[in-house]
Order: sequence, then structure tokens, then C-alpha cells
Amino acid sequence: MNKTNDCEVIKYTGTGSEIRDDSLIVEEPLEIKLISQGKSHDLSVTMRTPGDDFNLVTGFLFTEGIIHKKDDIAKISFDSNAQLDDDELQSQSVSVHLHKHIQLDPTELQRHFYSSSSCGVCGKASIDLVKQQGLFIIEKNKPRISAATLYSIAELLNGQQTLFTQTGGNHAAALFDGSANLTSLCEDVGRHNAMDKLIGKSIKENLLPLRDHGVLVSGRAGFELVQKAWMSGIGLFVAIGAPSSLAVQLADDVGITLVGFLSADRFNVYTHPGRVK
Amino acid sequence: MNKTNDCEVIKYTGTGSEIRDDSLIVEEPLEIKLISQGKSHDLSVTMRTPGDDFNLVTGFLFTEGIIHKKDDIAKISFDSNAQLDDDELQSQSVSVHLHKHIQLDPTELQRHFYSSSSCGVCGKASIDLVKQQGLFIIEKNKPRISAATLYSIAELLNGQQTLFTQTGGNHAAALFDGSANLTSLCEDVGRHNAMDKLIGKSIKENLLPLRDHGVLVSGRAGFELVQKAWMSGIGLFVAIGAPSSLAVQLADDVGITLVGFLSADRFNVYTHPGRVK
Repeated sequence: MNKTNDCEVIKYTGTGSEIRDDSLIVEEPLEIKLISQGKSHDLSVTMRTPGDDFNLVTGFLFTEGIIHKKDDIAKISFDSNAQLDDDELQSQSVSVHLHKHIQLDPTELQRHFYSSSSCGVCGKASIDLVKQQGLFIIEKNKPRISAATLYSIAELLNGQQTLFTQTGGNHAAALFDGSANLTSLCEDVGRHNAMDKLIGKSIKENLLPLRDHGVLVSGRAGFELVQKAWMSGIGLFVAIGAPSSLAVQLADDVGITLVGFLSADRFNVYTHPGRVK
Repeated sequence: MNKTNDCEVIKYTGTGSEIRDDSLIVEEPLEIKLISQGKSHDLSVTMRTPGDDFNLVTGFLFTEGIIHKKDDIAKISFDSNAQLDDDELQSQSVSVHLHKHIQLDPTELQRHFYSSSSCGVCGKASIDLVKQQGLFIIEKNKPRISAATLYSIAELLNGQQTLFTQTGGNHAAALFDGSANLTSLCEDVGRHNAMDKLIGKSIKENLLPLRDHGVLVSGRAGFELVQKAWMSGIGLFVAIGAPSSLAVQLADDVGITLVGFLSADRFNVYTHPGRVK
């Protein structure tokens, strides 16, 4: 399975230049089809780095509110054009057969994905709507973690993010526990995909709600990413980059501790500081 | 017009912590409605930083292939709930009245935005489709620019990106000419929005095709961003971050020079090196 492609670049440094080998992170489209009660619906095409595709799709359907638990998916498979590559099946098209108890309203689906074309759920006005979805309660002050632990997690991410080291071009999302162990890590060219893969994997392993874990993302904290964390029951959201205004507002509203600008010797706490001891 | 929000954070450094004032980049939804031949279509909701909203919408419609020139838009306006804020009109909803010669096929529109929910145009298989749209020809070896000029542009971007300096949370897209002048710069919480604002502004000023300019982006070079540059006739695409495999492939196919990892003393050229002298 190719997650990186080799290429040649002309590398300029100061006044000189030379031809060098380099690696690129792979970005490829993945088509997602929903099969429900005998009917097929073209759901979405996402640009992603191949690998963990079933987890990506599971996490995406969950964070979009189309499925609510593992059993809502009866079967998930690559389409017939799938090919073996390095002993792993690869395809640009995935079909998800929903369990027969799931009722899909195509009109609703369309409206839903209109709105989500850029933003998942559309902002401030929708925070209340999202809240009504009856998801997990975010448990107060859980997990609790020390500043020293957060510093050490920043270093761990750097060590483990293999694709980033190779290409400089990916994003990562990781789960960590109160003892600074990274229990799961997913990477992708897209930051939302990295998070969906992580959540999909957790659903597969029956780990939701993720009350004993924090989540760490390699980039910034936007509204959508915090929303995805919240839907998974995560109370501690940590970003290497900056948060946006709406991400802070959502975290504040639903009881999530939002940490930004994490590095090996500093970070900022924006909301619900009780989880940092 | 608020592009940043003030907030209080708890700032941890080493073993200490203190409460400090900080700024957040504003992320707010913008709803886009298309009015065509008397009918209104809900097009999309995008999360963006307020400001340059009409340019954002113009650039978005152009890079999605819904409009092809300035005159295709008869009128663009905020909806009735718009409010004055710092002497500038603000709203979370924009209506675009298309010129009567534009034929909109709602089914096509729906299919289009399904596909674009995460990726604009869906990848490799669609590069040929995009090519068939009959856009501007990318002119060979234009603009030509020296390595020294590229180094100095990296420094210029840092100096001008005011929102970034304040919040660390935004993206910028800028046009530059062969003499290292930044002729236009747009910022947004989303990197695709920054690019759409820049292109929309250029359309308003009748600058397309942008054959004498290069474009510089503050983040990575993904497929969609290179596609937007290509639709605007830009032959030189420069990113501060890493390119993806599909971005390199598109640039190679359509004749764009793709530069990545630009800093004050180094950069990589991935495709069509003839424009760097």
C-alpha cells in the first residue's frame, strides 16, 4: 500500500541547487457509497491517503451522524475494481451496507451533505442542533493530566509520526491516556480524515465513549475537529496549533478542555482547565 | 468587522502558569444561496473568517466552474439579517443573483457539490475532466523568477500576514510579480477560502488570466489549491509547506511550476523548473 510516492526534486539552498530524491504524501480520491434497503446512494468523495479506509469511512459516517454504533454497518467492502498492492487490497471506491434497521432519508442526506461541503455542521447556529443529537455526556474532570505529561506527549508525537518525517505533508491524530501513552495514532493528508480514521478504529474496537483518553492533533483546532472529538465522548482536546473562535466556543459549551500550541515546554488552556492538574 | 476575538488563556511554560490575554482567529459559517431565473438554490455553507465575503463567494463559484467571468454575476448581496459592525456590513448569508444567460441544472449542481464535499474535483480520474473545461492555457516559462526573489518573498509573507502574527491560526494566499512585490494578499481560517478570496478579488479587478503572477500559499500544496491556481491561469505555484502526490501530478500535467517548502534560504522545485532562473 503506497502512502508515499518517490519523486525527484531540484533542491535550492542559498545560491546553489542540486537534484535530489524526495517523498510525497499520497493524496487519492475515495468514493463512498451507502447501500440502504436495496438502494445505493452516492454519498461523498474524499481526498485521502490510502490505508485505514474502512476506519476512515466508519469514523466519517459516525461523526456525520449517519450511524451511531458499529452494528449499524452490516458490511463494508471495496468495490470490484480493488487491486492487491503490497499484499493489501486497494480501491478508490468503498460500499457501506447499512443494517436494515437504519432508515435513510435521501432528502435529509442531501441537505446534510450540502451543509457539510465545507464545514461538517454549520457553525454557531448549529451547536444547539448538534447538542440535540443525544450523544455521550462529557464527564467532568476526566481524564486529569499533569502539565509534565502534556509536555512529554508533544515529544512522543514527533517520534511516532512516520509519514510526517518522510514527507512533511501529513496530519496525525492520536489518542493518549493519563500516563502519556499514545494508545492509537492515525495519519492522513487531511486533518479531518486523520481524526475520522482514529474514531473509526475506536468504534471497531468498541472503545466509545472515549472517557479515559485525550486526543492530540498535529495541526490547528477548528470547529469540526472539536465536534468530532465531542461526538466520541472525549473530554480533553489538545492541538499543536492554534484554535479558532468557534472551536473554543463549542469546547466551552459542551465541557471539553481545549489545549492549543502544545510543545515540549509550553501550551495554552482555553476552556475547562480542571482537567490539567 | 471582527477577524479576531479576544480571550483569556492559562499559559503554561515549564513548571509555571499564568492567566494571559490572547486573540483567536474568528471562524463563522457563511451560507451561499444562488438565485437563477427566479429560483433560489441553497448552494453551500462554508466556515470562514468574516471579511472579503463577496470575493470569497465569487472565487468559490469561479473555481467550482459555476461562473466563468465577472459578468456572470448580476448582483451579490448580504441577506436581510445583515448588521453594521465597525462600519462594515456583516452577515452569515450571501445571495448571488446569476445573470439570466446562465443555465443552472439543479441535478448537476447537486452532483457537483456531492463530489466537492471534501475535494473540489475528485482527483486523478477527474484531472482529464477538469482539463476539458476550456480554461486558460498556462503560458510556458511565464513568469520567470530568480531563486533570490523567491527567498525574499518568503520573508515578505511573514511581514504582511497580520492575522497570523496575532493568532497563529490563519492561512494566507498572495499574488506576487517577478520583482518580488506582493500585489495582493488574502487571509482566512481556511486555506481554500484564502485562495478563493484572492481569486475572487482578481476577478473583480479583471486580472484573469493571472499570467504575470505567481501565487504563494502559507500552508501545504494540495490538489484543490493547485487546481484553483490553474483555473486562474497561474503558472507558478509556491507553498511554504509540502505538496501532495496529486498536486504534483496535476501541476506536471497542466504545465505549472510547483515549488514547495519555501523559506528564506531554501525551496524545492517539483515540476516544470524552467520558470526558476
